[in-house]
Amino acid sequence: MKATVMYAAGDVRVEKVPDARLVEPTDALVRVTHACICGSDLWPYKKMERSDVGNRMGHEFIGLVEAVGADVRTVKRGDLVVAPFAWSDGTCVFCRQGLQTSCLHGGWWGGTELDGGQGEAVRIPQADGTLVVLPVGRDHALMPSLLTLSDVMGTGHHAALAARVGPGKSAAVVGDGAVGLCGVIAARRLGAEQIILLGRHADRIALARAFGATDIVSERGDAAVERVRELTKGLGAHSVLECVGLEQSTLTAMSIARPGGAVGRVGVPQDASMPAAKPTFYNNVTIAGGPAPVRAYIEELLPDVLEGRIEPGRVFDKVTGIDGVPDGYRAMDEREAIKVMIAF
Amino acid sequence: MKATVMYAAGDVRVEKVPDARLVEPTDALVRVTHACICGSDLWPYKKMERSDVGNRMGHEFIGLVEAVGADVRTVKRGDLVVAPFAWSDGTCVFCRQGLQTSCLHGGWWGGTELDGGQGEAVRIPQADGTLVVLPVGRDHALMPSLLTLSDVMGTGHHAALAARVGPGKSAAVVGDGAVGLCGVIAARRLGAEQIILLGRHADRIALARAFGATDIVSERGDAAVERVRELTKGLGAHSVLECVGLEQSTLTAMSIARPGGAVGRVGVPQDASMPAAKPTFYNNVTIAGGPAPVRAYIEELLPDVLEGRIEPGRVFDKVTGIDGVPDGYRAMDEREAIKVMIAF
Repeated sequence: MKATVMYAAGDVRVEKVPDARLVEPTDALVRVTHACICGSDLWPYKKMERSDVGNRMGHEFIGLVEAVGADVRTVKRGDLVVAPFAWSDGTCVFCRQGLQTSCLHGGWWGGTELDGGQGEAVRIPQADGTLVVLPVGRDHALMPSLLTLSDVMGTGHHAALAARVGPGKSAAVVGDGAVGLCGVIAARRLGAEQIILLGRHADRIALARAFGATDIVSERGDAAVERVRELTKGLGAHSVLECVGLEQSTLTAMSIARPGGAVGRVGVPQDASMPAAKPTFYNNVTIAGGPAPVRAYIEELLPDVLEGRIEPGRVFDKVTGIDGVPDGYRAMDEREAIKVMIAF
Repeated sequence: MKATVMYAAGDVRVEKVPDARLVEPTDALVRVTHACICGSDLWPYKKMERSDVGNRMGHEFIGLVEAVGADVRTVKRGDLVVAPFAWSDGTCVFCRQGLQTSCLHGGWWGGTELDGGQGEAVRIPQADGTLVVLPVGRDHALMPSLLTLSDVMGTGHHAALAARVGPGKSAAVVGDGAVGLCGVIAARRLGAEQIILLGRHADRIALARAFGATDIVSERGDAAVERVRELTKGLGAHSVLECVGLEQSTLTAMSIARPGGAVGRVGVPQDASMPAAKPTFYNNVTIAGGPAPVRAYIEELLPDVLEGRIEPGRVFDKVTGIDGVPDGYRAMDEREAIKVMIAF
């Protein structure tokens, strides 16, 4: 089968790899129908050291169940399923509390041992805990929005929850990538009164406004902090969604939170330490977040997608087949596309 | 009047200073009956650069109201009052939400402009918002415990709240100073099932056990992390109270929190950045806390002190008069005393 393999920064290839197959009795085999490229895939695309074996890529996908192992109970051949960006058993102490990204028997797609979502088929470990059956056919018009439930919509939702967004509050979203844009959707969905997007790209800003952003701040650094303060009566935002992961964006996020406010971080941190230890302390700013347990959020968000109340699929502005994946990475890296969908 | 002034690291003096007096109509004048030296006073005692004018010291005190300004309504001459370690108006947006340490019109005791608690009298700005009347006489046997409501008991409580301590949970307390010991009291009071104290001093460990600590970890660094994991079924603690503020203690605190857990930090951070940005992210560990709004907690904790359910005053193991304050700093700095009370 064909799958995406990254060998080094900038070196992404679509290659023939061994066919995905059942190994454990708790596995399912899924034929991928839709997948995508993630903003977090761009970190290794910028920085990965050369590897001879390469890393299989992709952690966001929808597909048809082709076969299941003897112990699988909740999905069956022919089901259309969405996979969260982490697989999990659904039964351990962390899964039971809704933190499936810390599953004691779970893990991440791709790498050197497992299939990735940017390929024709995927072996799904812990299929019962991992997969969620979708109540629609594979050609449903909402497929792009449903695909975002595998990561970016759930991640934006996690950022908003971690930042304690609520009715009447002000929310600031740092980052205008697909996750930041989904953060705008999530903040609006949770009742934020004011939603400030920090971003600089005209197409993304337009989409953010469509999603509910009330204010746009395109300054950077101290100027951005000052502008957010102006927009929030000098106090800062109740809730800040950090959707980038760089030191500068994290510093900005921590600096625009008001006293007693919260920063929900979902951008994968690129540095070993966090800035602003003292101001966040003196202001009693809470820092929360991490990899979103999107598995916990799919059931909650699914009705809103199916009934059209939220349209996170609008973050996809480019569609490619499997052979176009390397160019999709390039397009996203060069900010030519917000997010690329792969249709099989 | 006599008051404590710090001129440089290690240079603390008791001197004659101008008498405290009413200035604003919202002021009260308080004659101090009991005060103390704080672990946080030891940071400047170790590091302060020489100053010609010096800093007035002390932010924890109880005293008798001697006079009030024309606009003061809630306290009157003769009342015995406890002062939180920050003064606040009680009416601003942050005070109303219980975050008096971020009061828009509040501030901190001492320094170059205001009186400090380690002196014979104090001008109290915003007396109505700041002071709490105590329903006992100045010689009541519970005075040491009541004095801890000005800071350390409220601060330990804040750490426990920020770390989301609750019934049935495991709590780890990093630091065996007075705040850490009060953190043990707070964790027990909030229902923690397991309370692990990380500390190394025999006298403090004994007190921690009396306060409810179930386990003691005297290792440091990686060995401490490993020991806490052993004590928590390999998972880490649900709640971690960081009561020191150094980089190493903060790293330990962040490393012993279990996935989905929380670190409540109340140790004043001594570094500009926070460690462990990546592990706290991947484990979805929440980092919260800051200067405790003890003003918000006094009413809640007062009945427990008056009815003897908690005895935080046991952290005082040395009492001095005003002239003994410099030696009290030395004794605390050399770990000869846990916490020094000043009786006037």
